[in-house]
Amino acid sequence: MEFKLLRIDLWNQKVREEKIDEKILRKFLGGRGLGAYLALREIPPGADPLGPENRLYILTGPITGTAAIESGRYHAVAKSPLTGILGDSNSGGQFGPWLRFAGYDGIVLEGMSEEPVWISIIDGEVKFHDARSLWGKGVIYTERIIRENVGITKEDLGSVLAIGPAGENLSKISAIMNDRYRAAGRTGLGAVMGSKRVKAIFAYGKRQIELYDRQKFFEAAKKLMKKIQEHSISQALGKYGTAVLVNIINEHGGFPTKNWTRGTFEKAYEISGEYLAEKYLKTNKGCWGCIIRCARVAEVKSGPYRTPVSEGPEYETIWANGGNTMIGNMEALIKINYLLNDLGFDTISFGNTAATLMELYEKAQKGELPEDKAKKLLSLLGDIEPTWGNADAVIQLIWRTAYRDGIGDYTAEGAARLAEAFGSPDSAVHVRGLELPAYDPRAINSMALSYATSNRGGCHLRAYAVSFDVLGVPKKFDPLKVDLEKVKLIKFQQEHFAVIDSLVVCKFNTFADSPEDYVPLLQAAMGWEDLTTEELLTIGERIYNVERLFAVREGHGYKDYLPKRLVEEPLPDGPAKGKTAKEAIEKYLPEYYKLRGWEDGKPLPETLKRLGLEEFLYIVS
Amino acid sequence: MEFKLLRIDLWNQKVREEKIDEKILRKFLGGRGLGAYLALREIPPGADPLGPENRLYILTGPITGTAAIESGRYHAVAKSPLTGILGDSNSGGQFGPWLRFAGYDGIVLEGMSEEPVWISIIDGEVKFHDARSLWGKGVIYTERIIRENVGITKEDLGSVLAIGPAGENLSKISAIMNDRYRAAGRTGLGAVMGSKRVKAIFAYGKRQIELYDRQKFFEAAKKLMKKIQEHSISQALGKYGTAVLVNIINEHGGFPTKNWTRGTFEKAYEISGEYLAEKYLKTNKGCWGCIIRCARVAEVKSGPYRTPVSEGPEYETIWANGGNTMIGNMEALIKINYLLNDLGFDTISFGNTAATLMELYEKAQKGELPEDKAKKLLSLLGDIEPTWGNADAVIQLIWRTAYRDGIGDYTAEGAARLAEAFGSPDSAVHVRGLELPAYDPRAINSMALSYATSNRGGCHLRAYAVSFDVLGVPKKFDPLKVDLEKVKLIKFQQEHFAVIDSLVVCKFNTFADSPEDYVPLLQAAMGWEDLTTEELLTIGERIYNVERLFAVREGHGYKDYLPKRLVEEPLPDGPAKGKTAKEAIEKYLPEYYKLRGWEDGKPLPETLKRLGLEEFLYIVS
Repeated sequence: MEFKLLRIDLWNQKVREEKIDEKILRKFLGGRGLGAYLALREIPPGADPLGPENRLYILTGPITGTAAIESGRYHAVAKSPLTGILGDSNSGGQFGPWLRFAGYDGIVLEGMSEEPVWISIIDGEVKFHDARSLWGKGVIYTERIIRENVGITKEDLGSVLAIGPAGENLSKISAIMNDRYRAAGRTGLGAVMGSKRVKAIFAYGKRQIELYDRQKFFEAAKKLMKKIQEHSISQALGKYGTAVLVNIINEHGGFPTKNWTRGTFEKAYEISGEYLAEKYLKTNKGCWGCIIRCARVAEVKSGPYRTPVSEGPEYETIWANGGNTMIGNMEALIKINYLLNDLGFDTISFGNTAATLMELYEKAQKGELPEDKAKKLLSLLGDIEPTWGNADAVIQLIWRTAYRDGIGDYTAEGAARLAEAFGSPDSAVHVRGLELPAYDPRAINSMALSYATSNRGGCHLRAYAVSFDVLGVPKKFDPLKVDLEKVKLIKFQQEHFAVIDSLVVCKFNTFADSPEDYVPLLQAAMGWEDLTTEELLTIGERIYNVERLFAVREGHGYKDYLPKRLVEEPLPDGPAKGKTAKEAIEKYLPEYYKLRGWEDGKPLPETLKRLGLEEFLYIVS
Repeated sequence: MEFKLLRIDLWNQKVREEKIDEKILRKFLGGRGLGAYLALREIPPGADPLGPENRLYILTGPITGTAAIESGRYHAVAKSPLTGILGDSNSGGQFGPWLRFAGYDGIVLEGMSEEPVWISIIDGEVKFHDARSLWGKGVIYTERIIRENVGITKEDLGSVLAIGPAGENLSKISAIMNDRYRAAGRTGLGAVMGSKRVKAIFAYGKRQIELYDRQKFFEAAKKLMKKIQEHSISQALGKYGTAVLVNIINEHGGFPTKNWTRGTFEKAYEISGEYLAEKYLKTNKGCWGCIIRCARVAEVKSGPYRTPVSEGPEYETIWANGGNTMIGNMEALIKINYLLNDLGFDTISFGNTAATLMELYEKAQKGELPEDKAKKLLSLLGDIEPTWGNADAVIQLIWRTAYRDGIGDYTAEGAARLAEAFGSPDSAVHVRGLELPAYDPRAINSMALSYATSNRGGCHLRAYAVSFDVLGVPKKFDPLKVDLEKVKLIKFQQEHFAVIDSLVVCKFNTFADSPEDYVPLLQAAMGWEDLTTEELLTIGERIYNVERLFAVREGHGYKDYLPKRLVEEPLPDGPAKGKTAKEAIEKYLPEYYKLRGWEDGKPLPETLKRLGLEEFLYIVS
C-alpha cells in the first residue's frame, strides 16, 4: 500500500511526489509518527521555526478516511515557534480524508513563498493562487472565498485548511484551522504556515483509498465501531460534548481557576456542557465518518455576544477562557470561541495567556511588578481592562492579539514570554513553553507526570491520566494518592496515543478501545499480516523516543518538570485543598525514567538500539 | 518667501526638493488650493485612485505653524477612491507645523513602494524605514513604535502621520490620521496612502518659519486672535466641543436619525456635548497653537466600553455612529470613536455605512431586498447583528471592516457601494459617493445647496450653511424658508472656506473672522503688500473652479444633486415634519450657476478666463 507525500517547494512553486518506503511506515505508521521521523531527519538543528529551513508536515495515516472509526483526522508537525522543539497537533473535521481523496496522503511545505499564496489540490492536480487579497482575513470568510473560487460551495465536498490573521502575524499561539472550526491548535503551527506565507490549502478529489484486504478491514472496523458506540463515555460525549467535564473536574477540585490559583470555580455549572446543551445547542456534529459526534453546533441569537450557528466551545476552550479567566458566562464563551476560531488561535494557549495578563494587571495595580514593567504594561493596554471575568476585555484582546496591536503584540507571544516580558515569569503556567490544559495536577496527581513528560510541552493528549484518575478507565484510582502503578499506565497511554495519532484516528476511541483492536485493521489495510499488539506498542514507544530526540538535539526542552506554581503553591480550595504536585512529580519521574530507559530526560543509547533507532544514536552519544 | 515641496519617489526611495513659484502661490496660496492645482496638472485623467499614477499631496500653507490663530493644520489631496474625483481633507493636531519645522512646506507621495515603508523627516533629512512589522497595526501603537524608533517619545515633540489597517486594506472610507486622534478623514485618502504602502511619516525639526514682516504679522494675528477668543461660539466650542450641536440640531429637527429616515432622536441629550462634558470629560485640548480648544479628552473608566484617556468623539462622529444608527449611549460612542481613530476610519462615512447596513438588514428581514441579495447579506454577517442601536454589533463591524472580513469586505467600500451591492442603492445617503454629514437639508434647507455643490461630494465644510440657517452667523435666516439670499452666502462661504483651507487655518475661525482679517496676515507673511480682500476671495473662487474642473475632466461627478431620500421622502417628525429638500434644491441651483458662471455644473470658458485659468480651458471646450 503506498503512502504518497506531496512535497511543495514554496520558493519555486514546484511540487514533487514522494513514495514513503513501506519499511518506514511499519516503523512509524503515518501521521504523528512519520512526521516526527521526517522532521528529525529533515529540519536542521537550530533551525529558526519561522525561517524557510523549517518544514510543515500535514499528514494522514494508513487508516485516515477509511470507515466510521473516527478516522477523519490529520496530524500537523513542524518545529514549534512557541516551544523551540518539535511541535505537533492533531485535528478532525474533514481535511484529512479529503486530502487522501485528492490524491495525497501527506503534504510537506518547504521553503517560503515570496508573496502570500493559497494552494488547491483537486484530483491530484496542484495549483498555486495569489492570496494577497485573503491576507488579514478570518478563517470563515477565507473558506467562503476559496470555495467560490474553485466552484465547490457545498460544505461537505472538499475541505479548506487555513490560517487566520494570528498565523499570518506569526503569533506563537496561532493554530492551523480546517473546516472553519477545527484546529490543529497546539504549539503555534499557524505561525509556521504564516511564515511560509501559505494562507490556505483546498483539497478535493475522487481517489479511492487503497486497502490490502477490504473485507477483513471492514469486519474489524465494524467490531471496533460497536465497542466505541456502546461505551458510556462515547454516549456522554455525543450528548454533552467535551464540556461534560466541566462539572466533573470542578467537583474534583482540579478545574484551574483564576490563572491556576484555585481549583474550583463557583460558576462552573453556568459554563458546563449540560448548560450549553440546554440553552444554546442546535445539534451535535461529528467529524468525517464519526459516530461519537462530540462537536457542538451552537448559537447565541442576539445580545452583545451574538454568535451565528457554528461549532461551539470545547471543554478546554471553556475552561481556559472561562474558569481560568473567571468568565462565567456561556454566551460570552461561545462568542470568544467563535472569534478565536475565526482569527486562528489555539484556544488553550490563548485563554492561559489572557489569564496571565489578568494576573499581571492585578500585580501591576498592587505594586507587585517591577515599576518600569508595570508602567509599560499599563500604557500598552489601551482600551483593554483585563480584570478577572471581563469578557469584553477578552474579546478586544483577541482582535489586538491577532494583529499584534498594543498589548496584543505581547500576548501574541504566549503566556511564558508575556509573563517574562513584564517581570513575573511564574505568572505563566506552562511546561516547555506550552500553556497547560484544564486539569490541575495538584488535584489529579497523575497529570503531574503526564504534563512533565509530554514531548510537545504541557499537554493532556500525550497521556490522559484523567481517564483513570477521574473517569475510572480502565480502572479507578485515587487522584490524590501517589501510586506508582499509575506511571505504567501513563507510559502505556503515551505509546498507545502515539499510535492513535499516527493511524490517524480519534483519541476518543481510547476510552473504549485497546491496542489489539488496531492490529487486524492494520493487517487488513497494509497487508502486514504478522503485525502484533506488542509491535504496535513498540511503534508507539519508538515515536515517543524520536520526539524526545528532537529536543535533545536542540539542546533544550528535554528536561521534565512542572511549573513552580503547581509544585510550591498549595491549592486553597476544594477537595484537594492544601495539596501541591511536588510529591507526585518527585516520586513518579524516577520510576518513569526506569520504565523508559531514559536518564535525566534523555533516551539511553541501548534504548534507541532496542527500538531500531540506530541512525539517531549520534544525538545521545 | 519660499514654499518647499518634498517630492518622494516611492518606487526608487528617492526624494527631490521643489520650490513652488511665487506666482502659483499667489494664485492658490497653499494647502487645499495648491493641492487642487497640482493634482489637476499632475494626476492623469482616468487614473486609478489606488494605482501608482495617483499622487498624494500633504500640504501646509503660508500661515501654517506661525502663531496662535488656529494654524496647526494641513490639507491632504489626491484622487479619491471613494468618489473617483478630486478628494481632499483637512486635519489639525500638530503634523502641519512639525512638517514645516522639519524643513518642508509640503510632501508629494509619488509612485508606489514595493514593500511597506515609513518615512522620517528630521531636520531636513529624509529616511525610509521598513514598515512590514507595522503593517496591520493600529494608529496608536504605530505612533508608539515609531517614536521609540526615532528616540523622540515626548508627545509634543514632532508628529506622526499614519494610516491604520483600514487604509492598508484599501477601505474607501479610510482616513489619514495624525497625532493619533486627528483625521484627514473624508474621501478615503487613507487608502491612497495604503496603496502606496506608506504606513507613516514622522516629522520633527527646528527650522524657523520665514515671515516677510514678522512684527506686522504678529500684530495682525493678535487682532484676529482677540476676535476669535471673544466670540461666543468659540467659547461654546471650548466648553462643550463640537458636540454642543447635538441638542441644537436635534431641536431644529435636522439631526438625521435611523439612516436619514427621521430628523430627531429621542436620546439626543444622552449623546450631547453637554452630557459628554458632565460625565466623561477629563479636559479640553487644542491643536497646535489653538485658543479655542474644542477637542475633548475623555475616558470611560470601566465596563464594556472602557476607553483609556484619549481624544473623545466630535459632533459628526457622535451623530453618524449615534443618531444615525440609533446608538444612544455615550460610553459606546466614546469607544466606537476610539476604535475608528485607531483603525483609521472616516467616522462620518463609517457611521453612515453602518446605518445603511442596518437598513439593509431590516429590509432583508422584511423581504424588501431581492431574494438572492438578502440571502447573501445574511450569510455574510457572521457574528454581527446590525439592528438599530446595537453598539456591540458596530464595534465588531469596525474590526471586520478594517480587515475586510465577511460583511466588512463590503462595508469597507462605503455606503453607496454597499447599498448597490445588495440591491437597494437609495439606502445610501450620499452625494458623488461621499456620505453626508450631520445636517438634514429637509430641516436646514441651505444645506441642500451646500451638499449638492460641494466639489468633494456631500460635505458640510465647503459651505457651512448651518452657520446662518441655525446659528445666526452672520445673520439668522429661517432654515425652512427658501430664500435666494442664502445662495450668495453659500457661494461666499465656498470661496472663503477655500482660502481658509489653503492658508491653512481652522474653519472655526470663520464664526468670528472675515476675509479682510487675512489680508494683513498674508501681506506680512508673503510680502504681497498689494493684496486685497477681493483678490483673496477670487483666489477662493479660482480654487473652487479648479476642483470642479477635475470632475469635469473625469467625465463624472460634476452634476449637482441631492440623494433621492432627501428630495422625495418628507421628514416624518420634528419641526420640519412633512418637508423635503426638493423646492430648495430646485430653486437654489439655477441661481447658484448664474452667480458662479457655470452651466449644468461645468464652468463656462469665460469664467475660467476671468479667473486666470486659461491653461485648463481645454477641459471645458
